[in-house]
Amino acid sequence: MTLLDTRASALADRYAAIRDHTEMLAAPLSPEDQTIQSMPDASPAKWHRAHVTWFFETFLLLPHLPGYRRFREEFAFLFNSYYEAAGPRHARPKRGMLTRPSASEVGAYRAHVDAAMARLLEKAPAETLPLVELGLQHEQQHQELLLTDILHALSQNPLLPAYDTGWREPAAASGPARMLDGPDGIREIGSAGGGFAFDNEAPRHKVWLDPYRIADRLVTNGEWLDFMADGGYRTATLWMSEGWARAQAEAWQAPFYWHRREGGWSQFTLAGLHPIDPAAPVRHICWYEAEAYARWAGRRLPTEAEWEAACGLPGLQQAADTAWQWTGSAYRPYPGFRPWEGAVGEYNGKFMIGQMVLRGGSLATPPGHARPNYRNFFPPDARWQFTGLRLAEDAA
Amino acid sequence: MTLLDTRASALADRYAAIRDHTEMLAAPLSPEDQTIQSMPDASPAKWHRAHVTWFFETFLLLPHLPGYRRFREEFAFLFNSYYEAAGPRHARPKRGMLTRPSASEVGAYRAHVDAAMARLLEKAPAETLPLVELGLQHEQQHQELLLTDILHALSQNPLLPAYDTGWREPAAASGPARMLDGPDGIREIGSAGGGFAFDNEAPRHKVWLDPYRIADRLVTNGEWLDFMADGGYRTATLWMSEGWARAQAEAWQAPFYWHRREGGWSQFTLAGLHPIDPAAPVRHICWYEAEAYARWAGRRLPTEAEWEAACGLPGLQQAADTAWQWTGSAYRPYPGFRPWEGAVGEYNGKFMIGQMVLRGGSLATPPGHARPNYRNFFPPDARWQFTGLRLAEDAA
Amino acid sequence: MTLLDTRASALADRYAAIRDHTEMLAAPLSPEDQTIQSMPDASPAKWHRAHVTWFFETFLLLPHLPGYRRFREEFAFLFNSYYEAAGPRHARPKRGMLTRPSASEVGAYRAHVDAAMARLLEKAPAETLPLVELGLQHEQQHQELLLTDILHALSQNPLLPAYDTGWREPAAASGPARMLDGPDGIREIGSAGGGFAFDNEAPRHKVWLDPYRIADRLVTNGEWLDFMADGGYRTATLWMSEGWARAQAEAWQAPFYWHRREGGWSQFTLAGLHPIDPAAPVRHICWYEAEAYARWAGRRLPTEAEWEAACGLPGLQQAADTAWQWTGSAYRPYPGFRPWEGAVGEYNGKFMIGQMVLRGGSLATPPGHARPNYRNFFPPDARWQFTGLRLAEDAA
Amino acid sequence: MTLLDTRASALADRYAAIRDHTEMLAAPLSPEDQTIQSMPDASPAKWHRAHVTWFFETFLLLPHLPGYRRFREEFAFLFNSYYEAAGPRHARPKRGMLTRPSASEVGAYRAHVDAAMARLLEKAPAETLPLVELGLQHEQQHQELLLTDILHALSQNPLLPAYDTGWREPAAASGPARMLDGPDGIREIGSAGGGFAFDNEAPRHKVWLDPYRIADRLVTNGEWLDFMADGGYRTATLWMSEGWARAQAEAWQAPFYWHRREGGWSQFTLAGLHPIDPAAPVRHICWYEAEAYARWAGRRLPTEAEWEAACGLPGLQQAADTAWQWTGSAYRPYPGFRPWEGAVGEYNGKFMIGQMVLRGGSLATPPGHARPNYRNFFPPDARWQFTGLRLAEDAA
Repeated sequence: MTLLDTRASALADRYAAIRDHTEMLAAPLSPEDQTIQSMPDASPAKWHRAHVTWFFETFLLLPHLPGYRRFREEFAFLFNSYYEAAGPRHARPKRGMLTRPSASEVGAYRAHVDAAMARLLEKAPAETLPLVELGLQHEQQHQELLLTDILHALSQNPLLPAYDTGWREPAAASGPARMLDGPDGIREIGSAGGGFAFDNEAPRHKVWLDPYRIADRLVTNGEWLDFMADGGYRTATLWMSEGWARAQAEAWQAPFYWHRREGGWSQFTLAGLHPIDPAAPVRHICWYEAEAYARWAGRRLPTEAEWEAACGLPGLQQAADTAWQWTGSAYRPYPGFRPWEGAVGEYNGKFMIGQMVLRGGSLATPPGHARPNYRNFFPPDARWQFTGLRLAEDAA
Repeated sequence: MTLLDTRASALADRYAAIRDHTEMLAAPLSPEDQTIQSMPDASPAKWHRAHVTWFFETFLLLPHLPGYRRFREEFAFLFNSYYEAAGPRHARPKRGMLTRPSASEVGAYRAHVDAAMARLLEKAPAETLPLVELGLQHEQQHQELLLTDILHALSQNPLLPAYDTGWREPAAASGPARMLDGPDGIREIGSAGGGFAFDNEAPRHKVWLDPYRIADRLVTNGEWLDFMADGGYRTATLWMSEGWARAQAEAWQAPFYWHRREGGWSQFTLAGLHPIDPAAPVRHICWYEAEAYARWAGRRLPTEAEWEAACGLPGLQQAADTAWQWTGSAYRPYPGFRPWEGAVGEYNGKFMIGQMVLRGGSLATPPGHARPNYRNFFPPDARWQFTGLRLAEDAA
Repeated sequence: MTLLDTRASALADRYAAIRDHTEMLAAPLSPEDQTIQSMPDASPAKWHRAHVTWFFETFLLLPHLPGYRRFREEFAFLFNSYYEAAGPRHARPKRGMLTRPSASEVGAYRAHVDAAMARLLEKAPAETLPLVELGLQHEQQHQELLLTDILHALSQNPLLPAYDTGWREPAAASGPARMLDGPDGIREIGSAGGGFAFDNEAPRHKVWLDPYRIADRLVTNGEWLDFMADGGYRTATLWMSEGWARAQAEAWQAPFYWHRREGGWSQFTLAGLHPIDPAAPVRHICWYEAEAYARWAGRRLPTEAEWEAACGLPGLQQAADTAWQWTGSAYRPYPGFRPWEGAVGEYNGKFMIGQMVLRGGSLATPPGHARPNYRNFFPPDARWQFTGLRLAEDAA
Repeated sequence: MTLLDTRASALADRYAAIRDHTEMLAAPLSPEDQTIQSMPDASPAKWHRAHVTWFFETFLLLPHLPGYRRFREEFAFLFNSYYEAAGPRHARPKRGMLTRPSASEVGAYRAHVDAAMARLLEKAPAETLPLVELGLQHEQQHQELLLTDILHALSQNPLLPAYDTGWREPAAASGPARMLDGPDGIREIGSAGGGFAFDNEAPRHKVWLDPYRIADRLVTNGEWLDFMADGGYRTATLWMSEGWARAQAEAWQAPFYWHRREGGWSQFTLAGLHPIDPAAPVRHICWYEAEAYARWAGRRLPTEAEWEAACGLPGLQQAADTAWQWTGSAYRPYPGFRPWEGAVGEYNGKFMIGQMVLRGGSLATPPGHARPNYRNFFPPDARWQFTGLRLAEDAA
């Protein structure tokens, strides 16, 4: 067995494990749950399951597995997300109209592609392996999106049904946050090669960092309640102008999934509606809210370079398994950025405007998916993701 | 067995038959099909099944069956359509968010209510029988809506799946239309009592009709193709101003479900996509289109009084089993109109503005549901219903 | 001097008087006031002044005055309102973008056309005289619209400036309303020929009227305050469904131009903001409000046929000089309706959908313009016109 | 005469000159021109004239000139732009509804405030002088906005009237662009104190710059025509995803004010409609267009730090007097940014999201207003400003 065999064999195992994980995540969902699209930014669970499969079919099987035929021709149209180079596609806001194929036909599609992928992986040319890995990383991204989107879908139902009553919430922090000194001066950030990284994480490059401090943990629900009690949602001068306009227009009074109930605030989670835990990290806040909170607290958001430089600091907790952490950095290409060659070159580059970088990872992020130089990104008004915040400040 | 027993017993049979018919109509639909709402004016099939059940529960069982308890309290909120007097309700455009209750739980809800209704009908007080009949007539209306709405939902899927490949289309007409002399002078229209009628069909009242003629059959697809070929959709002066604006904004070129395919026009129907039959009646046109066609043809739409007066004329075909027929009459109350007492008083009255009257009935109308004085109504831009037209003209 | 000379000479005088009246109405307005368009349904005062002039230029001078040349070619595009047959035109919602031509250049345009019209009227062919009369009636319609539109425009200014502090409000009624017996049975309504009438007023035709009674005066502000105090704007069951949705969405609490001030309600009028006069007729209510009021009062709106039949009844006041009166009739063509020949055939016919008929006339209607068979029409949500209501009821 | 006297005296002269310049810019505009608001992002010329006056009244005269009374109390509401701390204000999209005060009353307002400012400046406390300077810099910003906004307003008129037929267009460049080596490594950017700077230009701080090159001149119309001819507006892969969606939705085919005429393209300018000059810099492109062009050209936009570091390079032309130059940098605070104290603290900080930085200055920028560390900013879809682009590239 050659080295390549070993690597391909390991990849086949990894392929099976990740693909299974998606199905496990979809298991608690009825066919109805999997079908609806609760807002244009979200996608149906069934669509996620099919789209990640389309990715393998389109970028791996068709070009690299001789004799492979699409499971169904029309799926090329239905399950292309945004790849212009891969041809025309179904309009994004209409994904919820696809009652057919059924959830179980999507299951058959997955099995068809998995069987073909198994054949491909048996004797995959070395140059395809990075694309397989990309397909798996891509599927992991959609695993988290499946959860964020189903949380939103279920939240639209007045019955507030739980996705999984056993879903566990992030670990709580104890005691006040401590501000840690961050590494400053000339630093390097970005992917140094080696393990997998998306194109947007490269190249590794130098940045200059003025002295700063960064909190050892995320802001908690309890701290957020203080912000609310102090008029955080009623004080225009704490907010960016656009954020304030949105907050007023939509009458924001608390994080996105919070409901006022007799006896206090509750939060709708994947486990259903539960009273707020003051020690748990606040989640489902958009960038506008996070930034207003930081101003209220006399602090600021860290830049993504500060975050990455500080990532391994002793004492720094809740880095990657709790909630994505808004940074003060707009999502733009790194100096020297080059998109990948071919159709997958559309993967990240064309979204590098109008969004803010998040760092870390969340409880919904599949284990092993995140890493210190990972760059997540969403528009500043996105509230439905598993988002929180960590404070920073200048070290004068 | 008393007369009342007989009547109640017959009603129980009728109840069972009509309720079964709804389930039969829903049978070809998957749970996914039953869940989505393809536009705010349409409702999910599952919602139709539950709402008509809620009607019996709310207006019959709760007030009249001692000890009856709601199947589930929350359904009072979820499945109230528009009855202000029956309490708050789920927002109409959000009906497609209800992945729960599932299609099968809705089936259980129906069974629960049916069992209770059976008990009620065994010894129903005489004064409840009209309400039972109203509930059944109401369910029949939703049977047609279920079909119109699922046709729309399936039309949004690029796969254009059929509801039922065996669905038969309306009978074709042969030969040119003949214009029949209508009854004129003082005439009476409206419900004379006797059989069931909705509140909007009463009271019977006198109208004055100037001499007119009315076509013996509906306009056909072939005739509509002539209109199209003659620039019907490109000639502003044929159209009402509002209709023209809509036609331009949405680039109308043909009836709603028509698709241009190589070799000519096809129509998406409950049986899937099929080439146009020139002899079949044109369907899925809105009032603006119907009225423009009539102007192009040098004719006009009949008023609802003309239609009703002419309904039984010898030679008049396709009265009630083909397509709803747009009239030139705005939907307004008859002179002396009184809404029903109680919550069902909201049934019709509050919609008597901004809509046009349709007469007849369609292939999707349940057998036995329509009658000559039946008043259907939709806004002038509604295209997704089973709508056609019959021409009329002044008899100079 | 022949009969025709006399008639043409009288028409020339009438032409001058009506054209002067327009300029008199615009006189209190600054160039800025005349320019803005405060909503898509309203037009700038300057545009009204130019459009009525364009009407004479396009339909009289160009076809009938040899050698006439347009004042400025581009005006054909800028000041055509909705005549498809008269060529392309500026988009209606963009009328407020026309800072040029200036108000004074519009004055020069008017003078240019008036001079040419004087030449035409000196030896006008007999067949043109009806078109001249139509142009004058058209200008009178725009005289009222100029006032309704400027009232709206000024109302958008937080300074609430008056159009003319000397503007007098309609006469108040005293004592309770009396219900008069209306003429019933077979009646004739519509224009009998003779004087001028718009095409929509013809032909005269028979209608059947069931017995009814009609109020001798309009509903007053004081009566409207009772409706408000009794929860009129908070009681869904009084309202048409669409009207209720609008009232909720826009938080209606009173007629359109009413402002709550310390000490009670005031109304913004052409004379500025003034306390409500309880004895004055209520104005600036839309059809939805009028109809809800009538339901609350246990009455209904008269149909347009009832109104016209009752118009000359002894004791009936405030027929034509106070406020336009909403009827229960949708605006549809009379039986046998024929639009005029030529481009002016678009005058009325293409708007005969989606609107309700108003009868009477208002304080803003130019003297001599209204008549008993006059049919005014607006959509049921129009609140900025000088609209009120008169009650009716069935005479059981 | 003390040093302070001298400075205050010079400031008084400067005050008069800048205030006069505003009136000179408004002079070609009729009262009508000055009144309309052609889109929510633009303001009427009259409003600009009044708002900059309100700034002096609110932040200088009321707190610092004893006995000063507002010209008119309501103006505090009408002409506050966005200062939450200065109280409630007129809604931005309604600025075009203010036909009153008239253009000439705004002139009187300006004279009133100027007279009071003259008194203040005679014996102004030293601590007020920076605020006076801020007021003047603020007025200069609005001088450019007045021109951008009136260009937009006039462009909405089908007559395409010129603001000033003598308006000169930017100087053309000759020959191909040369790429200059930019300064790299650790550099400092931002205001070093000394002259006036807005809060967003501070503090001066270090950045790391990888080696890069920057074009010596702006991209020309001729080069842009090549981009268009090569399908620049039809090639999705050149565009950011959001930009492509906008370009498709609005059918972009050329820069904002370009019109296709027989014989080629023309551009609407302050001097009216004129044929494109291929050697002149392209203007009125948004960031999406600029970035797509750069990708097509195999280059990229410079970052704002690169731009500033390169600003004084020998050979670099068209730095500040031609067109604002889009950079690749999102508008965010500099490290250590502190907003000003007091109400003027809202000046810049609350807009630091969702916008891209522009550097340089344009032909419409008042002389002496721009400087190398000046940070202008607009959303990436803004096309109505005097915007162009300068290319950059990595020096591998």
